Amino acid sequence: MRGVATVAVIGAGAVGCYYGARLARAGHDVRFLMRRDLEAVRARGLEVRSPEGGFRLEAVGAFAEPEAMGIADWVVCSLKTTSLAEAEALVRPCVGPETRVVALMNGYGVEQRFAEWFGPGRVFGAMAFVCINRREPGVVDHLKYGRLSVGHFEDDPEEAEELAAVLRSANLDVVVAPNLLHARWEKLCWNIPFNGLSVAAGGVTTQEIVDDATLRRVAEAAMRETVRVGNADLAAARSAARLDEDEVVGRLFGLTDTMGAYWTSMALDFRDGRPLEVESILGNPARRAAELGAAVPTVDALYALVRFAEASARG
Amino acid sequence: MRGVATVAVIGAGAVGCYYGARLARAGHDVRFLMRRDLEAVRARGLEVRSPEGGFRLEAVGAFAEPEAMGIADWVVCSLKTTSLAEAEALVRPCVGPETRVVALMNGYGVEQRFAEWFGPGRVFGAMAFVCINRREPGVVDHLKYGRLSVGHFEDDPEEAEELAAVLRSANLDVVVAPNLLHARWEKLCWNIPFNGLSVAAGGVTTQEIVDDATLRRVAEAAMRETVRVGNADLAAARSAARLDEDEVVGRLFGLTDTMGAYWTSMALDFRDGRPLEVESILGNPARRAAELGAAVPTVDALYALVRFAEASARG
Repeated sequence: MRGVATVAVIGAGAVGCYYGARLARAGHDVRFLMRRDLEAVRARGLEVRSPEGGFRLEAVGAFAEPEAMGIADWVVCSLKTTSLAEAEALVRPCVGPETRVVALMNGYGVEQRFAEWFGPGRVFGAMAFVCINRREPGVVDHLKYGRLSVGHFEDDPEEAEELAAVLRSANLDVVVAPNLLHARWEKLCWNIPFNGLSVAAGGVTTQEIVDDATLRRVAEAAMRETVRVGNADLAAARSAARLDEDEVVGRLFGLTDTMGAYWTSMALDFRDGRPLEVESILGNPARRAAELGAAVPTVDALYALVRFAEASARG
Repeated sequence: MRGVATVAVIGAGAVGCYYGARLARAGHDVRFLMRRDLEAVRARGLEVRSPEGGFRLEAVGAFAEPEAMGIADWVVCSLKTTSLAEAEALVRPCVGPETRVVALMNGYGVEQRFAEWFGPGRVFGAMAFVCINRREPGVVDHLKYGRLSVGHFEDDPEEAEELAAVLRSANLDVVVAPNLLHARWEKLCWNIPFNGLSVAAGGVTTQEIVDDATLRRVAEAAMRETVRVGNADLAAARSAARLDEDEVVGRLFGLTDTMGAYWTSMALDFRDGRPLEVESILGNPARRAAELGAAVPTVDALYALVRFAEASARG
């Protein structure tokens, strides 16, 4: 997979727009399935603001229907998991015999669904460690970080390197994970405490969490529980890969301590009354922990409180 | 202690008014230190509404200053623990050589303070298992239950029986606890999950907690953690008394399931912008657990979230 790839981005939220724009800038043929931003992007292109150097794509392939997008080499599905039920119908029109499908989504249990729909050999997962927010239509605010951790559903290292090569051609920071499950849990180690607490504490940024000593301890407790259930899940999957609890805690708090007043995606969704990725980020891991017999009381509490907060907000 | 007792009620909130009124109706000489309700009670007396039979006291000894109340046989201190720093100064004017002092308050670590101030031999604790709310000044709404669990600070059974006898003379349901620490933890087994979650979930009644399956599981987890740290604390105090985890869970959820849409005192304080008893109900037990090396992750999470919610509400 060298040269120009055809990439279909399904679900052009902040993450899809950012990585898609980076690939397009590198010369790949990127087509975006857009909803909210469609007219703005058709009229004015797609702008990425970033302290690392912003840019604007003038001519962007922006589509309202996946049927119009054509078969792609790579389909990057960056829908929210709250739309996972729609993903198959939106992705399938872009999938031909050679197409590979990348779930660039949050949460636990996502690739399994894609593997069921499209066959496991063509399915990948990608985890974005990036601070990014949508702005007005056609504009994405890249704030900080951006590393992608990627893996192949069946953990074929050559396949994973194919994906990594495409992404690196856009000068992106890419790590091929020891395996996909490991990468999922590593991402959950951040998402569970910080997305969870950002809503459970009433709608706050990461700064409030790391600056309040007692909230910070709860975040750490949730992170350590996540490492442990992740390792139990890796063991159950007969993987030798493990998360190093203290390394993960040190590294992810180090990143978050310098993140500033960052609004997690879940806090933004909560603030703006959109559906929360509560089941994929909190519910599925909590249920997996229960299956594995791993105690995750802090995660359970965050799951219950976020779920209840969303239900209350919807009245 | 038979016959008529002189009782000074310091801190005439819902609990102080209710039990004081019951004692007054039984013929005891009860004097109330009042703030908010003073003028109303002087003008119209004190009314208790209750499904078990309401009543009104026409002539009530209502005082603005403890110095005017005289020495009492019993001082019942029913201040909120957020006013614990003021308790000594408010109680002392009513304390003579024979006076006994009852802390009818929530939380952990309360009697210790009274023992330091007034000497351990005259200090008692009382835990009210009662659903009760204040209404307009001079009116208390007794909703359900009412059992008092009492103990002497040095666990002198004869002393504890003296207190029980006075309370029973007012036809109150009184249990003399195996020891005071046991009674404290038993009360915390309800207060920690239900006061904690009622605020952490954004300001809800007990009904929302027990009816939501995931919140209910969190409440149960917090209760079980509380039982365990309570038992560790009893062991550390060389007490043979223990809380039976399944019995406590079964009984307290049984009570709460039939409580209806009850607003905990902490949820009411939160709703009305008053200080929360977060340190005595959640913080002190969490710190005691840490001292004992007992893991209480759910309690820690509730403590952090309630503390943060209060701080946020105060801006």
